[in-house]
Amino acid sequence: MKILLIGGTGTIGSKVAERLKSENDIITAGSSSGDVQADITDPNSIKTLFKKIGSIDAVIVTAGSAPVKPLPESTNQNFLQGIKSKMMGQINVALTAMDYLNDGGSVTLTSGILAEDPIPQGTILSTINGAINGFVIGANGDFLQQGFRINAVSPALVEDSADELSDFFPGHTPAKMEHVVNGYEKSLKTFLTGEIIKIS
Amino acid sequence: MKILLIGGTGTIGSKVAERLKSENDIITAGSSSGDVQADITDPNSIKTLFKKIGSIDAVIVTAGSAPVKPLPESTNQNFLQGIKSKMMGQINVALTAMDYLNDGGSVTLTSGILAEDPIPQGTILSTINGAINGFVIGANGDFLQQGFRINAVSPALVEDSADELSDFFPGHTPAKMEHVVNGYEKSLKTFLTGEIIKIS
Repeated sequence: MKILLIGGTGTIGSKVAERLKSENDIITAGSSSGDVQADITDPNSIKTLFKKIGSIDAVIVTAGSAPVKPLPESTNQNFLQGIKSKMMGQINVALTAMDYLNDGGSVTLTSGILAEDPIPQGTILSTINGAINGFVIGANGDFLQQGFRINAVSPALVEDSADELSDFFPGHTPAKMEHVVNGYEKSLKTFLTGEIIKIS
Repeated sequence: MKILLIGGTGTIGSKVAERLKSENDIITAGSSSGDVQADITDPNSIKTLFKKIGSIDAVIVTAGSAPVKPLPESTNQNFLQGIKSKMMGQINVALTAMDYLNDGGSVTLTSGILAEDPIPQGTILSTINGAINGFVIGANGDFLQQGFRINAVSPALVEDSADELSDFFPGHTPAKMEHVVNGYEKSLKTFLTGEIIKIS
């Protein structure tokens, strides 16, 4: 399969690339690294990326961020930063992918545990992860109509980030990276669609 | 209780006002109707509204909209319309309310069934309803810290809108308006917090 992996040089994306590269043609995209560059906060940059790459069997997105801060200090602008990146960045990739997917193609997005298991300072991410899950559930019918599939992987705090982030996630048991990567492989290779694949 | 009801002249809001008015001091806000006017798509208009009204015991939002259209025709701009109105409109009300709520005060937002039970043309609303649910789950801790509560009511297609909207909701059984209004009353008068109160 020819797979576009946006965020393919990041913490999770690089491990997904490692797992899939022997059997697939992986194109990694990043904002400044990877095989090709794109800025997912800019819908036109996403369109240019797909135009460059052409038709594709699958798209996986492990990119996008949002501010982490206490709610009383969070502004409309802070929410919009996360909306532009992790929320609309991923949604715009999915929308554009519909014009480039081959028959039976799939899109796999990334939400996260904070949609249902909140942490202090994590409300913007809880909001955006909820939005991504809602998008996948809503978009599934249109993807099916075109012979495509769409899922989101929703990982817990992943072990590779635990040293850096565990203070923000008190009492959270990190997920094994191997299990998180399994989520993306499951979305890619099964018939699952419209699913939020939770990895704890 | 002194209650600010944003959207209080709309289909659901007017029935919530009717239920609560005998026992409470209800201030209805609308974009062009109601006791006071505010544009929830503009964070500054929300701030001006609260400044005018002052301290308050509860805020209920039944306002906000999003485009309904097939996903392949939906653009970044269409999503942003819904984000600005039903998503960030409600979130900005909740953020501003934190500065004006009295002890034990509550905020009740409105999401909707499309977050988990999708319809054709409804993906933008599925996304935004998911975001509101994620926000309530994420924000609950900060609200609790300040002695406040926050919930969302997530109604099915409501009977009063069924004549107009049933073609968009094939096979959906409309919820009784009385049951939908119960959801807002439950959020207002119980100790529930961080809950998505689903009304089917």
